[in-house]
Amino acid sequence: MDERRRVIRDGAVLVQDNRVVEVGKTSEVKKTARAELQIDAKGMLLLPGLVDTHVHLAQALIRGCADDTSLIDWLQKFVWPLQGNFEAEDGKASAELCMLEMIKSGTTTFLESLLHPRYGFEGIAESVQRIGMRGILSKTVMGLPSYGSEGNIMHPGMIEDAETCLREVEDYFKRWNGRADGRINVWYGARSLGGCTRELYKQIAEGARRLGTGVTMHLSEVQEDVRYARREFGKMPGEFIDEVGLARPNVVFAHGVWLTESEWQIFARKGASVAHCPSSNMKLASGIARVPEMIQAGMNVSLGCDGGPSNNCYDMIREMKTASLLQKARLLDPLVLDAETALEMATMNGAKALGLRKEIGSIEVGKKADLILVSLKKPHLVPPLNPVSHLVYAANGADVETVIIDGKIVMKDRVVETIDEDEVMRHANERGAKLLARSGLEITPKWTVV
Amino acid sequence: MDERRRVIRDGAVLVQDNRVVEVGKTSEVKKTARAELQIDAKGMLLLPGLVDTHVHLAQALIRGCADDTSLIDWLQKFVWPLQGNFEAEDGKASAELCMLEMIKSGTTTFLESLLHPRYGFEGIAESVQRIGMRGILSKTVMGLPSYGSEGNIMHPGMIEDAETCLREVEDYFKRWNGRADGRINVWYGARSLGGCTRELYKQIAEGARRLGTGVTMHLSEVQEDVRYARREFGKMPGEFIDEVGLARPNVVFAHGVWLTESEWQIFARKGASVAHCPSSNMKLASGIARVPEMIQAGMNVSLGCDGGPSNNCYDMIREMKTASLLQKARLLDPLVLDAETALEMATMNGAKALGLRKEIGSIEVGKKADLILVSLKKPHLVPPLNPVSHLVYAANGADVETVIIDGKIVMKDRVVETIDEDEVMRHANERGAKLLARSGLEITPKWTVV
Repeated sequence: MDERRRVIRDGAVLVQDNRVVEVGKTSEVKKTARAELQIDAKGMLLLPGLVDTHVHLAQALIRGCADDTSLIDWLQKFVWPLQGNFEAEDGKASAELCMLEMIKSGTTTFLESLLHPRYGFEGIAESVQRIGMRGILSKTVMGLPSYGSEGNIMHPGMIEDAETCLREVEDYFKRWNGRADGRINVWYGARSLGGCTRELYKQIAEGARRLGTGVTMHLSEVQEDVRYARREFGKMPGEFIDEVGLARPNVVFAHGVWLTESEWQIFARKGASVAHCPSSNMKLASGIARVPEMIQAGMNVSLGCDGGPSNNCYDMIREMKTASLLQKARLLDPLVLDAETALEMATMNGAKALGLRKEIGSIEVGKKADLILVSLKKPHLVPPLNPVSHLVYAANGADVETVIIDGKIVMKDRVVETIDEDEVMRHANERGAKLLARSGLEITPKWTVV
Repeated sequence: MDERRRVIRDGAVLVQDNRVVEVGKTSEVKKTARAELQIDAKGMLLLPGLVDTHVHLAQALIRGCADDTSLIDWLQKFVWPLQGNFEAEDGKASAELCMLEMIKSGTTTFLESLLHPRYGFEGIAESVQRIGMRGILSKTVMGLPSYGSEGNIMHPGMIEDAETCLREVEDYFKRWNGRADGRINVWYGARSLGGCTRELYKQIAEGARRLGTGVTMHLSEVQEDVRYARREFGKMPGEFIDEVGLARPNVVFAHGVWLTESEWQIFARKGASVAHCPSSNMKLASGIARVPEMIQAGMNVSLGCDGGPSNNCYDMIREMKTASLLQKARLLDPLVLDAETALEMATMNGAKALGLRKEIGSIEVGKKADLILVSLKKPHLVPPLNPVSHLVYAANGADVETVIIDGKIVMKDRVVETIDEDEVMRHANERGAKLLARSGLEITPKWTVV
């Protein structure tokens, strides 16, 4: 799969150091290539690693803490109280659990949306380095303790002042941006409308320009965002964002459910991207983003799994299917958002959103060797009529066999080689139990537990 | 999980022959029980086997043959030409592939919707017997060669006359109903509106009453069904169905997307069920069934995966999540169709739909031992906050470790013991390729294949 939308049957890829140096028919590549290590991918799909452009690493540990509940209860009764009680060790445990899950389902690059100092930025960055993923870590920037238009106040454990936030981003940027052979980048994670003043959004835009880095932010996830923007700024969220200088490349807006046509036009013209999160939008009943229309308007739309209490898994292969099916159901049109488009959203569009289009997102000579192998030797992927269809509509993350990131084998035959999987799960279980106890919360099914 | 909606932590189940004879805390059960064979389910969920109430066994072989296309093209250009070229060996290959997939994702009982003699009823029934699933096989009954209100004509390879159909159902019923220790049942598979005359529907209802068996039928899957019923019979589809005597227990209507409140009332009062197929309805853009409202009206709503070109996988665990998320998105209400309801639809409601409520669908003393074990030792199921939530929202079929049907271990540690998995896949690949060649169809991605 390359940018020319080609599928090579019986193909081979040659990797040198961390880059792809040859792509073609196996018979052609074998004529000249001499490889130290050869991976037999017979009966498998070789794909570019998947790019998840909206992830909360610190939410894997609280997976399933708040289901079938309103967004406000979700935040105020469960997610914030738990996250507000995080210790750095919880953040690390959660991030490692999340990365383990992402690797095991074929994600090689992620954009973490809102890292709070409570979660331990340094520990998480070290985990990214050690585990071998490609990750953009966005540090939360907030200036108001509120959330959205309803005057909801964040958990005291989460509140920071603007100056501290801005200083921390610069500190983390200096220490971590470009580290781990360029696998780690540091972005601004602006809180959504209601969480920053107009002035602070401007400072974020200015800071990102100065550092030459990116910004991510939840935008128009819920209708409240639109009401807030109209009331506070007399504008639609996208118009306000443009005014403060945030409608530009290397800016990724998560969700964009309630964006309107004029806002799509702004983002299309200015090169900002939207990370569509269909499972999360459905589960939290945020609404349904008009993805085919956004793409039609020229916007770059990528894909994201969001978090442990909103999805509740980090499986980009499942997310592709959900994205496609959701639009067909909304528009009562089976032709929209086809399998090929879903796959582009999860790869090329993701790369573009993150400003990494020249480096990842497809298999090309010169790009980074971020590659995954998906086994087709599964009952649900037989017979092999159309590989793109099978990947998007029938496969799931458990079909990923091998993951290569930056030229290094991170998972082989479903065993992650850069971390002790059992230890990650044990640690997450232990930290999760302690966190619950500390927060005074109990999470149980609605049924009687005996 | 039992009918009282209880979750037992650290529980044990004792099975004798094909029935559950004890359920309780492990410490209690162990006091008296002596088992020949003991399965350690530590760190796993023990659940009743999942019940898929709308399956097309003969569509596994044509998985992915028609994606992102209109329903009419889907049927007339791809599904019918392929199915109309089936030979009995294709039907068997497809059914075995489908059953393998179902077992590997935790389904123990299925309702096959429309078996055509082309697919080889005997061969399929023998496969069900040998592989060890619990299955209801419905033989297609048609009287008109048309489909729906648009005058679409079925593929010549599929057309049968009414008398032959009715006679075949009785023959198959005599030979197979109750066979395989009662695991196999034979029902009438009435073709959807446009495929039978009023008289034929009455004959089906009468025949089912006489044999004491059930009927399944696609109903109000698409808006055309409503138009057809109103034009031809001057009634809504559900009213017409009631008139011909098919609104009764042991009748399962697949889809029911466009049913209205008055029809729900009829089905609720008369005890007919709807098999909701969310992935299929989304992918084919049929519409969104109003499931919470149907349940509220007192109807029994179960779940189905439908088929290889419409879903395109047979994974009931994924289907539970899709069912839940779809309603939340439709109603913009995160509280509707919660995880517990989705699990009931996939188990207890399915059992009720099939007239097997006393036998399967929950774990109770006296019920059949149809049990599955789901591993929680996976990154995406850690930490173990709420098992119902994890099962519905985070798990997928690949997390099922062990499957017991009718007291027999059919899959252990993900290895199916009753059939050679590699041989099933090899055979399906071979038959699929031959079928394509015979049908003169080529299925490729939209991208350039080199």
